[in-house]
Amino acid sequence: MVLVGIDPGLAATGYAVVAAAHGRYQALRYGCWRTAARLPLGDRLLHIHDQMSALLREQRPATVVMERLYQLRDGSTGLAVGQAIGVVRLAAAQAGLDIAEYTPTHVKLTLVGHGQADKAQVQFMVQRLLALPAPPRPDHAADALALCVCHLPSGLSRTAGPAQPSAGSDRLAAALAADDRAQAAHRARLETP
Amino acid sequence: MVLVGIDPGLAATGYAVVAAAHGRYQALRYGCWRTAARLPLGDRLLHIHDQMSALLREQRPATVVMERLYQLRDGSTGLAVGQAIGVVRLAAAQAGLDIAEYTPTHVKLTLVGHGQADKAQVQFMVQRLLALPAPPRPDHAADALALCVCHLPSGLSRTAGPAQPSAGSDRLAAALAADDRAQAAHRARLETP
Repeated sequence: MVLVGIDPGLAATGYAVVAAAHGRYQALRYGCWRTAARLPLGDRLLHIHDQMSALLREQRPATVVMERLYQLRDGSTGLAVGQAIGVVRLAAAQAGLDIAEYTPTHVKLTLVGHGQADKAQVQFMVQRLLALPAPPRPDHAADALALCVCHLPSGLSRTAGPAQPSAGSDRLAAALAADDRAQAAHRARLETP
Repeated sequence: MVLVGIDPGLAATGYAVVAAAHGRYQALRYGCWRTAARLPLGDRLLHIHDQMSALLREQRPATVVMERLYQLRDGSTGLAVGQAIGVVRLAAAQAGLDIAEYTPTHVKLTLVGHGQADKAQVQFMVQRLLALPAPPRPDHAADALALCVCHLPSGLSRTAGPAQPSAGSDRLAAALAADDRAQAAHRARLETP
């Protein structure tokens, strides 16, 4: 099974392709699509959509895994990142693919065991679980890899202790439930006409 | 010259097609694309993008005119409407078209003469300038028509007094300059990586 992970943004969209087979995971490809702020907004969105569509055609993933954003600084930030998310989601829908979404907190909980883990801790776990020679760079690509790993929970139990929550599964379950409630409230707001 | 006006939204996107020739304007078509909140978000964006692409193929407009939003309630609102704007902007870029954008305040100033005009006043002016038999409905379609009319300023001077700012062009110029400054600040925020 192949997964495509996306950390969406207008200036930089991180992407990753991870293959899973026989309990082993492999990062096939990862990186970042950048668009220059001096370009017209339409051209920037065209670039992101073209890159995403080409990646889906090439890799034929089972699922797209994307970061779910719901705590944004203000309406303008939401408007900018929303446009990038819109064209990424459109490319997935045009390819007939579902999108699985996880909040950054969910990813940190799953990979490191607590929702306040820092970037270095997440990158260490991604490096370890995917057996990469060095911590993945840039940050957006690392986040896209982390999203793929987050979507493959069975692997975590096979690989290592540190990926398990150190404070017991009850605390993890409670934290994930709180995360789900926040996401549900966000979805309800999104669906208000 | 044909213009396509768009009032973008996830639940409802207003559209309008206005033709201008020999100082006369004609509303060729207007309405609203609605998407049900129960549908997956990807399908809703696919619908908006398909409708927009089909309209641009059929009508071959010179320009797309869109509402510029920059004062949004919060990040979630921006994220929702941003996704709709993203796929509309993508469809225009795929058709090689530029987008002219006007804030609601700009539209009200141009059509009615003051930025606090209410919907009924704007719709009255749209009806009058396009010689429609009744005020245009629904509101999203009326807004899309108003955007097209706003982009055709030469017509206003030919048609009627009420479309001119009653308080003199200095006040209009000052108000538009303030509007431009707010938009410039918004663009600067958008372009922050």
